[in-house]
Amino acid sequence: MKKQINIGILGLGTIGSGTYSVLNSHKSDYVKRVGAKIAIKKIAVKSLNKKRLVKVPKSLLTTDVLSIVNNPEIDVVVELMGGINPAKDLILKALKNKKHVVTANKELLANYGKQIFDTAAKNDVDIYFEASVGGGIPIIRPLKRELAANRIIKVMGIVNGTTNYILTKMADEGSFFEQALSEAQAKGYAEANPKADVDGYDAAAKIAILASIAFNSRVVANQVFTEGIRAIKPQDIEYARDMNHVIKLIALAKENKEGLDVRVHPTMIPVSHPLAAVSDVYNAIFVEGDAVGEVMFFGQGAGGKPTASAVVGDIIDIAGNIIDGRTGKMKCTCYNKKQVMPVGQIISSYYLRMKVADKPGVLAKIARVFGDKQVSIGSVIQKGHGGKLADLVFITHQTKEKNLRAALMLINSLDEVSKTNNVIRVEG
Amino acid sequence: MKKQINIGILGLGTIGSGTYSVLNSHKSDYVKRVGAKIAIKKIAVKSLNKKRLVKVPKSLLTTDVLSIVNNPEIDVVVELMGGINPAKDLILKALKNKKHVVTANKELLANYGKQIFDTAAKNDVDIYFEASVGGGIPIIRPLKRELAANRIIKVMGIVNGTTNYILTKMADEGSFFEQALSEAQAKGYAEANPKADVDGYDAAAKIAILASIAFNSRVVANQVFTEGIRAIKPQDIEYARDMNHVIKLIALAKENKEGLDVRVHPTMIPVSHPLAAVSDVYNAIFVEGDAVGEVMFFGQGAGGKPTASAVVGDIIDIAGNIIDGRTGKMKCTCYNKKQVMPVGQIISSYYLRMKVADKPGVLAKIARVFGDKQVSIGSVIQKGHGGKLADLVFITHQTKEKNLRAALMLINSLDEVSKTNNVIRVEG
Repeated sequence: MKKQINIGILGLGTIGSGTYSVLNSHKSDYVKRVGAKIAIKKIAVKSLNKKRLVKVPKSLLTTDVLSIVNNPEIDVVVELMGGINPAKDLILKALKNKKHVVTANKELLANYGKQIFDTAAKNDVDIYFEASVGGGIPIIRPLKRELAANRIIKVMGIVNGTTNYILTKMADEGSFFEQALSEAQAKGYAEANPKADVDGYDAAAKIAILASIAFNSRVVANQVFTEGIRAIKPQDIEYARDMNHVIKLIALAKENKEGLDVRVHPTMIPVSHPLAAVSDVYNAIFVEGDAVGEVMFFGQGAGGKPTASAVVGDIIDIAGNIIDGRTGKMKCTCYNKKQVMPVGQIISSYYLRMKVADKPGVLAKIARVFGDKQVSIGSVIQKGHGGKLADLVFITHQTKEKNLRAALMLINSLDEVSKTNNVIRVEG
Repeated sequence: MKKQINIGILGLGTIGSGTYSVLNSHKSDYVKRVGAKIAIKKIAVKSLNKKRLVKVPKSLLTTDVLSIVNNPEIDVVVELMGGINPAKDLILKALKNKKHVVTANKELLANYGKQIFDTAAKNDVDIYFEASVGGGIPIIRPLKRELAANRIIKVMGIVNGTTNYILTKMADEGSFFEQALSEAQAKGYAEANPKADVDGYDAAAKIAILASIAFNSRVVANQVFTEGIRAIKPQDIEYARDMNHVIKLIALAKENKEGLDVRVHPTMIPVSHPLAAVSDVYNAIFVEGDAVGEVMFFGQGAGGKPTASAVVGDIIDIAGNIIDGRTGKMKCTCYNKKQVMPVGQIISSYYLRMKVADKPGVLAKIARVFGDKQVSIGSVIQKGHGGKLADLVFITHQTKEKNLRAALMLINSLDEVSKTNNVIRVEG
């Protein structure tokens, strides 16, 4: 029996450093748990001389990534570089070399998941990716295993800490998006180029991964309708609050008769919803199953140590599997083929804020257009009466998105309507 | 390769019926997931003619429990009777007959866990018990596996729905315990004999199980200091609210230098704590790990279908393991031996409500006793000034429980003190 499981790590940034530190802090615990020592053999970095978050012996570092993925001594390759290239080729090579792989790379899995899982299966090795969604929050394996008895009805989460921090700041301080973003950048919660976070792409990759597991059917990132938070204004947050709602960047996936409804967008949710209280950089994933009802998983969705918790958890599981001789069993569960619905087909309630001429008869004109397009209005409130222009805030009943869009196109062409300033979907 | 996994179920009450119904509703999904059919061979019941929550063919029922645990055709025995006897003997017999076991029986595991896990290990079979804590909420396996990288600092949960419902009612409606209990009984949330729930024994069994996993050291039910919610009065809830706290029945386990601190009692927690918002029959378990930080698992902690979600999840995992030929690997992880601290040694803050003579000098007398016993007071508020007697409400700083108890014994013997009406521990 093996006495030691050798791992090689690709990348020593925030998560790599966290992983190094966690793996080294409880070595003797892991020996008891696994039945063998887990040893870091090599860590691939871009530069040997860069200042690091952790103290790592020089002898462990290499700039030669192939010396890890091709190393016959290494059992598990831990990919923590992120991005598609060169991570994809390195992971595929490692799998072909019969190495198990642990990765936190949501972008890669959400785009090339099938190829990667197929390659793992073909080579009878495992790929673990608990850290790819929700940082340290256990969600991938619970959804795959502990909730396996359920037909999943809905997965709905706050899976991006940066945007949740920004929206929390905006709500608490009444600030504008740009201001809250600067604060987030100053605190290190947002990157210099915040696009992947604030435009929703990071969340889209994550919900593609969760949807694939929840509905047993592969969903890729570009099938996810994605809208970021740049358009949210303090008024929207204020009007939402008046109606006992909060605005969160929600990633959601549900199954309908017509297929899977998978999307990321700012969403108004009632303050009573468990996700409404999830603030700052915290993440939470809410799952509804036909047996379990509603469950929620909450925690830190990012950061070196929390994410390392998931990475090292995966390493321990794989190491235990190697010792027990039961590898190659963490199979892909996408055994169904389901359509992803085009966004025009989705059904939702909508919050609409529009600037209109403040005079009699305007509401009647707008209401007629909604009626003609089968959009039923739940409530309408006028804000800022007395000037030339006023805000009209509508909440629609459940309606097909393409009907709403058709109605808005006509409404925006009315003389009395200056502009529709925001459209935010509402979830129960 | 096996084409079918045969299971036998012991018990057809709420959870048994839920399990039967869930197992039958998604049969074809489970075949895809497991690679074989999961078939219910027999269900043991007390009476063949009782009216059931589900329609079950008569041919499946038997009153002969041994015909299940001794049946060579059965691969997995699912024990859903509850209680120590005869569940214990039946599970041990099943394990000795090389059958895997799934159980929801927290009482049994919290008292005879060691014997049961040892027997499973000896016979190279698995025992799964996800349903024993938190109903359908995934917590056992996430704590054992996904969070394995962490040294656990604290586990703190609302793990009993009945008491949480009662405390929620008391808080929302200002009602007394007895009244809220009657309501809970009328709604079917509390049993006719509510002792196990309201006196904290159910929660104590659950935290014993969680502590054993979290700290890798066996904790049994009678090592858990246990206090129920009968003494909570509307005033306590009101005074807590004045200080931005709520009162919950909290089960907690932490590790200190002196050992494990494991207990169940009514606890004042700040309204900002994630557990404070967990109301009605919902459960939530909050885990703090040195890498992951704080994570929380939330959902329905009881009920037929939610609990069946966990039971059937376990069955699917075991069935998959049998098909993959990798059974007997869900090992007991109690590889440490840690002391459980006596309650006198624990450190906590305390809320104290006492009835005293409403005249000058009383507070000075009481304060001197606290000072003599090394109990430091954080705040004191007098409620109901102007009569003969007034309420004094103290919040202490962190102090050793035995010092607090010594101080209270002296204080209660003072002429000016009519009575200490309640002592409630405060957690941050």
